[in-house]
Amino acid sequence: MKPKLNEVAKYANVSEATVSRVLNQRPGVAEDTRRKVLDALTRLGYNFGAERVRKFRTVGIITPELDNPIFPYMAQAIESKLARHGFLSMLGPATPTTAHERDYLQHFVRMGASGIVVVNGAYARRSIGYAAYERLLAEGIAVVLVNGIYQPCPVPAITIDIAAAAQSAVRHLINLGHERIGCIAGDMQYTSPQDLARGYERALRAANLHVDPDLIVEALFTLEGAKSAATTLIDRGVTGLIAMSDLIALGAISAAQARGMEVPRDLSVIGFDGTPLLGMRGPTLTTLRQPVDRMAQSVAAMLLGQMNGDTQPTQVFEADLIAGGTAGIAPALVRQPERAGASHLA
Amino acid sequence: MKPKLNEVAKYANVSEATVSRVLNQRPGVAEDTRRKVLDALTRLGYNFGAERVRKFRTVGIITPELDNPIFPYMAQAIESKLARHGFLSMLGPATPTTAHERDYLQHFVRMGASGIVVVNGAYARRSIGYAAYERLLAEGIAVVLVNGIYQPCPVPAITIDIAAAAQSAVRHLINLGHERIGCIAGDMQYTSPQDLARGYERALRAANLHVDPDLIVEALFTLEGAKSAATTLIDRGVTGLIAMSDLIALGAISAAQARGMEVPRDLSVIGFDGTPLLGMRGPTLTTLRQPVDRMAQSVAAMLLGQMNGDTQPTQVFEADLIAGGTAGIAPALVRQPERAGASHLA
Repeated sequence: MKPKLNEVAKYANVSEATVSRVLNQRPGVAEDTRRKVLDALTRLGYNFGAERVRKFRTVGIITPELDNPIFPYMAQAIESKLARHGFLSMLGPATPTTAHERDYLQHFVRMGASGIVVVNGAYARRSIGYAAYERLLAEGIAVVLVNGIYQPCPVPAITIDIAAAAQSAVRHLINLGHERIGCIAGDMQYTSPQDLARGYERALRAANLHVDPDLIVEALFTLEGAKSAATTLIDRGVTGLIAMSDLIALGAISAAQARGMEVPRDLSVIGFDGTPLLGMRGPTLTTLRQPVDRMAQSVAAMLLGQMNGDTQPTQVFEADLIAGGTAGIAPALVRQPERAGASHLA
Repeated sequence: MKPKLNEVAKYANVSEATVSRVLNQRPGVAEDTRRKVLDALTRLGYNFGAERVRKFRTVGIITPELDNPIFPYMAQAIESKLARHGFLSMLGPATPTTAHERDYLQHFVRMGASGIVVVNGAYARRSIGYAAYERLLAEGIAVVLVNGIYQPCPVPAITIDIAAAAQSAVRHLINLGHERIGCIAGDMQYTSPQDLARGYERALRAANLHVDPDLIVEALFTLEGAKSAATTLIDRGVTGLIAMSDLIALGAISAAQARGMEVPRDLSVIGFDGTPLLGMRGPTLTTLRQPVDRMAQSVAAMLLGQMNGDTQPTQVFEADLIAGGTAGIAPALVRQPERAGASHLA
């Protein structure tokens, strides 16, 4: 049903020309007036089809479960950048047990989103591929994928260079005297854990250290999964480890404490993400911080660019190693003076 | 534009009767088939109006900024309960600086949401009132408000009894020997901070302790705001305090540490929310835990009830005092033996 221009104009108390300008997205209408007209259209039952609704400039942001605080943090950062350009962001938290990414994709398309951002999406599982997102592009919807990207990626994307970050974290542990270093990688079906393991191996090889495949452990992306993986690594004698997320790092610290070990005295732990708040109490977490604000800025720029016909290649960001209080000198180096003293006495 | 039944049936490779059943939300269609039909409708450019989209059973969840981890946690819990009933949840993070609650309300209505959940919404500022939500109800949209409720509330709502919770927290501190107790309340224009202060005063009066208005401090709902409020209270000589959120409690702990004080030795801190993860490192936070899972369950039940014409009154939940490691015996009681020893020597 399509109400007549004059009905809408009367309801909104504006001229018919103004209603027409709003409907056709022409400039020269104050935001207040635009809202009044849109409100009148809604009240009068204007049947907004996808094409029409698209012009309200909404963006859908799909993230994994919000239990891992990096995802709401990333979503809020992207929302905030897009809001400056007049976009309203809708969040869809896709989880394995409730709503799936494809449900949200379908819904965002149906409701006429101008753009869709997918953070660590289904594509990150290599077997899934990018076809679903290419179809969105073909339908004229702007798309930006965030993290978990592998090349060649035919869809605009930004990603952290996880392998490089992992390499710098392991190098840091090696410099602190650690030789038996573990890697809690997450689910190896996904790109990011594969990249983490690759950077981990590269750093060990560069230092002529043995790469022991038993020290790369898969883990569910949960605290419990992290605890179990960390316990396995502790049993295998590691003195330091890197983790795929801060959440996993916290699980590892918790597992060490449950064994009566102190961090970093007995076990050094380096996380990934730089999630705010997680480092608030006790020693701050040593972690690879994602430049979330700059990444969000890029996501917004890439989305807007696409809407103007400008498609950019994948942008790669570096994670910064933030030296907190959970990675320290290897236990052997700390204990050496004691042992030396003991032999002296004998 | 309305594609013909037979086109849709052909595209989806199902019978016309099936397409019709899906369009009219009649039972007897397998979920896979339903999806295929909906997908075909979208691909063929079916012009979903608000009435139609409403039948896709989406719910909008509006929360304050996601920087406070209780909000994504609450949203995810509600999403998860609703998903079991076949609803797809869209999140709208309303913040003072980006998108407003009214933008999301308007958008969720326009996109045809079956229900809307508002967590700590604009209504929590008493001057705003409930009229906007009553209008939604009148339009046939199910609405549930969560927390920050004041009576009489004409809209289905669930809320924590914040005054009772605050009273139990202050009683706990009094039992630990504290007499000079502070309250970091948040912004007093909102209901929850008012309730917190009310429960705080009630507990002091019940113990015949003086109520000093200087010990109830307003704070912005940010870490920085919390630090500044806590510093004020520390300067005013409190040995214990309660905070409107775990986030504020963390800010208070951080302010105490910046002054060289130890928690709980020199300052006892009780938070509010029971946010997971925040208590992960160091001593766990003593806090008033919201029963988020049960609350989410109620939100889902109330929404579904409304869709079946069943409107329930406000449901009130109690927060549990979780005795963690940040509230301890008042410093004076700990130091007494020392002083006694000193006088003994003199």
